[in-house]
This record gives sequence, C-alpha cells and structure tokens, in this order.
Amino acid sequence: MAGESQKWILTVTAQTPTNIAVIKYWGKRDETLILPVNDSISVTLDPTHLCTTTTVAVSPSFDSDRMWLNGKEISLSGGRYQNCLREIRGRAGDVEDKNKGVKIAKEDWQKLHLHIASYNNFPTAAGLASSAAGFACLVFALAKLMNVNEDQSKLSAIARQGSGSACRSLYGGFVKWIMGKDDKGSDSLAVQLADEKHWDDLVIVIAVVSSRQKETSSTTGMRDTVETSLLLQHRAKEVVPKRVLQMEEAIRNRDFTSFAQLTCADSNQFHAVCLDTSPPIFYMNDTSHRIISLVEKWNRSEGTPQVAYTFDAGPNAVMIARNRKTAGLLLQRLLFNFPPNSDADLNDFVIGDKSILQDAGIQGLKDIEALPPPPEIKDNIPSKKSRGDVSYFICTRLGKGPVLISDESLALLNPETGLPK
Amino acid sequence: MAGESQKWILTVTAQTPTNIAVIKYWGKRDETLILPVNDSISVTLDPTHLCTTTTVAVSPSFDSDRMWLNGKEISLSGGRYQNCLREIRGRAGDVEDKNKGVKIAKEDWQKLHLHIASYNNFPTAAGLASSAAGFACLVFALAKLMNVNEDQSKLSAIARQGSGSACRSLYGGFVKWIMGKDDKGSDSLAVQLADEKHWDDLVIVIAVVSSRQKETSSTTGMRDTVETSLLLQHRAKEVVPKRVLQMEEAIRNRDFTSFAQLTCADSNQFHAVCLDTSPPIFYMNDTSHRIISLVEKWNRSEGTPQVAYTFDAGPNAVMIARNRKTAGLLLQRLLFNFPPNSDADLNDFVIGDKSILQDAGIQGLKDIEALPPPPEIKDNIPSKKSRGDVSYFICTRLGKGPVLISDESLALLNPETGLPK
Repeated sequence: MAGESQKWILTVTAQTPTNIAVIKYWGKRDETLILPVNDSISVTLDPTHLCTTTTVAVSPSFDSDRMWLNGKEISLSGGRYQNCLREIRGRAGDVEDKNKGVKIAKEDWQKLHLHIASYNNFPTAAGLASSAAGFACLVFALAKLMNVNEDQSKLSAIARQGSGSACRSLYGGFVKWIMGKDDKGSDSLAVQLADEKHWDDLVIVIAVVSSRQKETSSTTGMRDTVETSLLLQHRAKEVVPKRVLQMEEAIRNRDFTSFAQLTCADSNQFHAVCLDTSPPIFYMNDTSHRIISLVEKWNRSEGTPQVAYTFDAGPNAVMIARNRKTAGLLLQRLLFNFPPNSDADLNDFVIGDKSILQDAGIQGLKDIEALPPPPEIKDNIPSKKSRGDVSYFICTRLGKGPVLISDESLALLNPETGLPK
Repeated sequence: MAGESQKWILTVTAQTPTNIAVIKYWGKRDETLILPVNDSISVTLDPTHLCTTTTVAVSPSFDSDRMWLNGKEISLSGGRYQNCLREIRGRAGDVEDKNKGVKIAKEDWQKLHLHIASYNNFPTAAGLASSAAGFACLVFALAKLMNVNEDQSKLSAIARQGSGSACRSLYGGFVKWIMGKDDKGSDSLAVQLADEKHWDDLVIVIAVVSSRQKETSSTTGMRDTVETSLLLQHRAKEVVPKRVLQMEEAIRNRDFTSFAQLTCADSNQFHAVCLDTSPPIFYMNDTSHRIISLVEKWNRSEGTPQVAYTFDAGPNAVMIARNRKTAGLLLQRLLFNFPPNSDADLNDFVIGDKSILQDAGIQGLKDIEALPPPPEIKDNIPSKKSRGDVSYFICTRLGKGPVLISDESLALLNPETGLPK
C-alpha cells in the first residue's frame, strides 16, 4: 500500500434519495438476506427535499470502522451494516489517486478501516424511509470509494441487505424491486421502470402526522405478519403479481386513474394485512383516516382520481397529485382541514417546494384561516377542523437517483482528520 | 272473523337479546334474501342489560300496519320489514282467544293490520346491534301472536331477512348462523351450539367509545367489500370454514385460550377486509386501537389470554373475560386508562352488572383516580390517560334467548287503543 506513511485520507461523498412504495413490500421470505415475498414498485422522491448525504473515508490511520448518523456515533456491529460492508469489500477494486500518491490494491480493502458520516435533510423520526436512503447512500458511496465494478442493479442487491427498500433508492423515477427466485438473493434487485422525466407532471405532498403512539418497527411487524396473517400469502401470491403488471402499464402510459387506484388499493391492503396480524399492527391513526376520507371524497366528487395516497409503516400520508394545479387544490383542502396551531410559522409548516403554496394562493396564516370549505363538503356539515394534527407538510416531486458530490465543502468528514466536521 | 264488531285487540309482548359475533359475518351472496358468504358464530348477551322489548298487536280496528321504535313512529315500507311481515303472515295459523271471544282463521291474517312498538334498553346509537335484537324480537313476537307453527331455526331464517345477524338472536348462549346452500335461503339459519349455562364463567365488558365520525352503514360497507376487496373471498372460502370448526371445538371444551385467540383474530380480519375495501372502511378509531393494545399487552404478560376482544361495525370494544376475577382486573385497567370526565357520575359510567365494579374495589370516582398503573406497563413509560374517550362501560354476561312477557304492564301498546303507552 503506497503512501501509507503519509497517513493519507481518501473520501467520497454521495447523495441518495428516499423512495415511497406504490406497490408495497411487506414480508420477507428470508430474514437475513432480506428477500421479499413479492415484487414492489416505488417512486423516488426529489433529493432536494428528502435525501441522505453520506461521506465515506478510508485511511491507514483509522483503527476501526466507525459511523456517525446525524452527528452522533452509532454502532456498526449490527448484521445489516456488516453484511453491506462485507459485500462491498468483497467486490472492491484497485484504487489509485495520483494527486495524493495513493495506491490501494483490492486485497488491501480487507485490512483498511472506514469512517462513515451520514446526514438526513429531514427528521429521522418523521418515518420517511430514512433507512432506505441511508443504506442506499452507504453502499453507493462505498462502491465509488472502493472502485467496485458493478452496475447499479448489483449494488441495489447489496443495499437490500441493509434495508429491503434501500435497493429501490439506487435509481430515480419509477423503480421496481424484483423479488427474484434465487435462494442466495442474487436476482432480488431493483431495476428502473422509467426515469423521473417520464412523468414529470406528478407532484407529491407529504403530511407529517403527529402521533402519540410508538410504532412497531417494520422488521418486527413484517415478521409477525408472515408468521400469523392468514391473508398475507394470498396477497403476495395472487394479488400483487397482477397489480405489479397493471402498475407497470399505468406508469408506461402515464395513466393517472389506474396509477391512483392501484396505489391507494395497495396501501390499504398492506395496512389490512398488518391488521390481520397477531397482535394486530396499526400504523395509520385517526388523522391518517381523515386524510384518506378527504381525498376519497374529493376524488369521488370529481368522478376521476385527482390524488393518490399511500402510507408506510407510520401515520404519515404521502399524496401524489395528478399535476401542479391539482396539488394546489389538494394543499388548500389539507390546510383547511388541518390548519397549524396559531403560534406556527407558515415557513416551517409547509416546506419543500413552496411554489405549490403560492399557486394555492396562500401567503400567510390568515390565508389559511380564510380558506372556504371545499365544494364537495358543502352539502354536508363541514367536518371539524383538526388543528395541529398534522405537524407539517412537505411539497416535492419525483427525483433522480444517487449522485456523487464533488464539492468538498459538502463532505461530512474532515479531510484532514477523517472525523465529523 | 268472530268478535269483529267488538273492536277487540290481541297483543303479544316479547323480549329478545342482542348478540355479538365472535366469528364475523361480513359480505352477502344475496342482498335481498340476506344470505352470507360464510358461517358466523355469536354469543348472546344477557337481555337484563341489553335487549329489545316489542309488543305486537292486531285488531280489526287498525287501518294499516304501523310501527313505533323507541316511541317514535317509523315507516314499515322498507323491503326488510315487508319481507319479515310477508313471511310471517304466510305461516300464520288459526288463533282463538276464548276470554275475549276472538277467533282468527289463518287466512284472515292477510287482511288484518298490525301495530308494533319496540324499545331498546340501551342507546340505539351506541352501535350495539340494535337491529339484530329488533328484528329477532319482531319476528318472535309476531310468530307467537299469529300462532306460527315453526321451530326457532325456521323463525331465525325469517328474522335473517330483516337483518342478517338478527337470526342469531333467536337463541341464547352460543349460536351459529349456518350460511346454507339453497339459493332461496331456506337453509340459511341459526342453530344453538350451547346454551348460556354451558360456560357461565365468562363475563362481558363493553366499552362504548366516543366517536367524531359517522360510520359507514354495515349494509353499504358489506356491499363495497364484496365488490372491491381482493381478500374477502379468500377469507370467506379458506379462512372462516376452518375457524368455525375450531371455534365450535373451543366452545365445546370451554377452552378459553383458543376461544380468545380465534375471537381476536377474526375481529381483526374482519376489520382488515374493511380496510381492503375501496373506498376503505374504518370502524375502529384510535381509542379502539388503544383498547386492543392494552388487552394484548396484558394477555402477553400473563402468558395466556385473560380477555378476548371483538369489534363490530363501529369503535365500541366488546371484551370477554375468562371469569369474574379477570373481569375485575380488566375493569381496573380500563378505568385506569380511560377514566371518566371529572363531572361524571360513576353510576352512569359503569352500568349493567355493577357487582364487577365492586369486585374491582371501586366505589367512587376517587377510587378510579387512585388506581395504580397495571404491572405490565410498569417498566415502560405509563401511557397517557385518555380521559373521556370512553363514554361508558357496560358489564354483562351471556344470556338467554327470546322470551314472552306475560306481565301486561310491561306491554308497550295500550290494550284499549293499540297505540303506544
């Protein structure tokens, strides 16, 4: 290993998006390799608003593998991190950095230690698939650092072993995780169905819902469902395969009606099998239910779906609007029903792409209070407002896959010390 | 028709229990005849605490069929009432009342009009299957009045055409509604599995849960589920038939562990297929979920189920405790988590069999406030109390089937006028 005496440090920084499944992954056929019981399909969210940034560093001066998540050191001893590190190290190539006078032979990677720093630009606790973006970013950044000569799909199969849904964050746009058949998981990987430009009308609004309850982790929940639900296997074997084909066609044809119907039905069915679990798992709460009712009522009144909704392992609603105009109308409805507390700052209450808010004609809290009830509830008694039940909204869109960040000022590790900045 | 000139009135008064399914009925294969997609099993609740009383009267002086429910006149023009009246009239026999000098030949029943008054001893809005008790009572009372010579099972098939679950209220104890095969529904009827004395340890505690939301009617909900759920048929054809056999065995052997597991699993699966419906149906709310969590946590901590829970088409929890002692411990846990508002009267907050409350050592509101957290949550942060989220509790047990009330003072119609007292 040339240059060892100089105590050099090599770093790579990458940024990776999070994703939200529109055909859900729930249930593993292999717990260790993280092999699912059915295919799933996701949309990748714009990393401008929701992403993980990870800097990985290698140096002969490092004594052990270490990792910092959002500034706090965490253990890498878990099987999921170890699996990713082992798989990546096993595929490492020769690396040469002529500027720094560094040469690493592929066998050297087994001895060299790594420092990893990772940061989410959104609250981890918000339940927005931070582990998906996190493991995808870890694997992507390490693969670059170690000159791993594999295509993105092969990397996705490694990320999958960190967190199942992480494999879908290796691509932008619309992504399918093929469950595969191999017992070793070699063919359980992600492929891109279409990039984010294929259907760029879509706008995404996320409601981060306040919750009193600690949720069941998805790992535990899935295991319980596989072991106890009498409906899951029917879903996995009979329902999802057909839905995946229909969803692929809807995406290909930009058929929003089918896309929305399939997305909503599959989210609801995922929560149905959670409820069919013993003990039952509840991820949605009354606020989630009210958001669904609001969207369903509006969609029915329009005769054709304007907005799709989907919920992961938590109460947050991810809504996908047909286009910008619809997104503005959706935001009006959401803000009418779920206004902020009176001491809120609008700037913190609707984040992300704020132009949607401007399109909706809302410049301040007064505009929210002045919103009229939407026409579809006019005949009924207007539903009681649920002030404070949504913590904040995020407006975003579909986005691109992982990218390398060459601007060293954005790296999370100090290039001299290899420790968090 | 002898005695017509005297403007006589004949009346019959009956009392019929409500019931709660432990293997659920959800989904019709015939909407008009009310034929279900699967068998169901229920327990009959003690009519002392939850029942319908119905007085039926016939007189040549009546101009039309009329009905009063809880003192308010309602229309009998609906198909469900008409079906029951037609079926009963078609089976009417000769009637003679020597005291009153009245003779009615069976063909006369087609011309004679009826007055019906019905009263529930519990709030209709509480969502406690008032229509089940109501139609069962109507059919039972009319059958007695008209001297219908059919056994209870045949009557249940008539009550079924008023409200599906009504057929199960024709018996006490444990009742099975056999779905039947006949397209005309002749074999879709209830049979008694065991009477209420077979397993008289069981104690029932009902939490009537406050709700903001108007619920989907079960008729509409079932129809939507049959039309849109991709899980319902699997449940009806593959899951329920096995569960019914297991439940019959559990009841036969008074095997509370199996009884509780099957009851909870089937309630949850019913709500799962509701959620798998488009648009999704939510009957349980956050309070329902918290009650389930409380029971599940306790059952797990004891290693064996102490209490079963089941929810119908609404947020109310029906809990079945292993025995009186367990019911007292359950009530302590429920009152600890869901205390009444400070202005409540304990006498109205826990109704029914108040001896359970005494067994639990609770004589006043102060005793509720002094309850310690149950041991199973001691290691965790005690969950926030949900004051006022339960409107009231009903303590009861299994009970008997329909009975005639001979005490004329309890009749709901004036024997002179045939109008509500």
